[in-house]
Amino acid sequence: MTTGKGSDGADRATRTGRRPGQSGARAAILAAARTRFSDAGFDKTSVRAIATDAGVDPALVHHYFGTKQGLFAAVVKLPVDPDTTLRIIDSVPLEELGENIIRAVVAVWDSPAGPGIVAVVRSILAGNDDPALARTFILEVVLERVRQRIATADDDGRARVALVGSQMIGVLVARKIIAVEPMASMPASDLVAAVGPTLQRYLTGGIGQKPS
Amino acid sequence: MTTGKGSDGADRATRTGRRPGQSGARAAILAAARTRFSDAGFDKTSVRAIATDAGVDPALVHHYFGTKQGLFAAVVKLPVDPDTTLRIIDSVPLEELGENIIRAVVAVWDSPAGPGIVAVVRSILAGNDDPALARTFILEVVLERVRQRIATADDDGRARVALVGSQMIGVLVARKIIAVEPMASMPASDLVAAVGPTLQRYLTGGIGQKPS
Repeated sequence: MTTGKGSDGADRATRTGRRPGQSGARAAILAAARTRFSDAGFDKTSVRAIATDAGVDPALVHHYFGTKQGLFAAVVKLPVDPDTTLRIIDSVPLEELGENIIRAVVAVWDSPAGPGIVAVVRSILAGNDDPALARTFILEVVLERVRQRIATADDDGRARVALVGSQMIGVLVARKIIAVEPMASMPASDLVAAVGPTLQRYLTGGIGQKPS
Repeated sequence: MTTGKGSDGADRATRTGRRPGQSGARAAILAAARTRFSDAGFDKTSVRAIATDAGVDPALVHHYFGTKQGLFAAVVKLPVDPDTTLRIIDSVPLEELGENIIRAVVAVWDSPAGPGIVAVVRSILAGNDDPALARTFILEVVLERVRQRIATADDDGRARVALVGSQMIGVLVARKIIAVEPMASMPASDLVAAVGPTLQRYLTGGIGQKPS
């Protein structure tokens, strides 16, 4: 996708009588994507439909944003492509998934990209951003990937990944937003030791009510 | 405190040459309390100091707000006195503390007071309210009470209750703010079964790193 820079999109734009400038095309794609993702969610939105709405060739969308996931990350203004972190989910043994999730995610939060992520989450929690976009991102992008990994497609699986999400949001708020000590300055390895088993139990352990 | 309505405060106000109206005195107490709690935190602020700042008798503070805790709840605009819920912490067996915390707190969130609490938390997370007040409330009012119950005054105890706080904030966000299904509409008893053991492990279980 790094070859043929802009050519497809520019040609097509000429043929259809529209020729937005570079930044104009990028902005048009983002605007179209925001509307589509917000209306239909992540899964049911195609790059082709977004390109049509924006009046550009799909190749130009890929040129600017890489994958649909990258485009989505740009729409919700995430400073990192979540795919880099999410790839870990597919590559580690199932019984080590919990500790790997907390380790990978805290590494991103503690990185230079952290403040940008905190700003996005803050804005979502405050209700400034579209809550449908936030829900789509959490449910269809992040948690869906985890759910596929634990391979339980039923309500039980959805509950498991939602519980994981709840603990991760809580760690973000405690460590980065309210800055509750000692969680704010705790070494990442301590956090992994404390929270990893929680996530692992939510993913693969017993979470139901005891038989009475 | 429900007897002698206003008499102490009114008399003193007359003697000191100041006589704010009923609502004026209440507002003056709230303003003084907000400043003091924000500057010095919950523990180091006395009702007497707030009363002096507001130019009223301490008895009037108690008359309007009950305990210092009730006054604090009014300052952070909590629609319920947290003491009602916090009392549960002192009364249940230590090994059942985790499930009782999630049960009691979710009951309040799901009650008619819930939307008011969600509004307060949203405002804090968005950074509209004073973060020092939020931190004070969480650290000195809620978590301190739990920490005393598990009776570990060291850093370990502070980490334990902060972890409990992180999971509770996460459940609130997932269930009430972003409304991630199935957590948003999950029966409270399912939530207790899933999250109770997490809290219990944070409070009394092994949360450190395995010896290598």
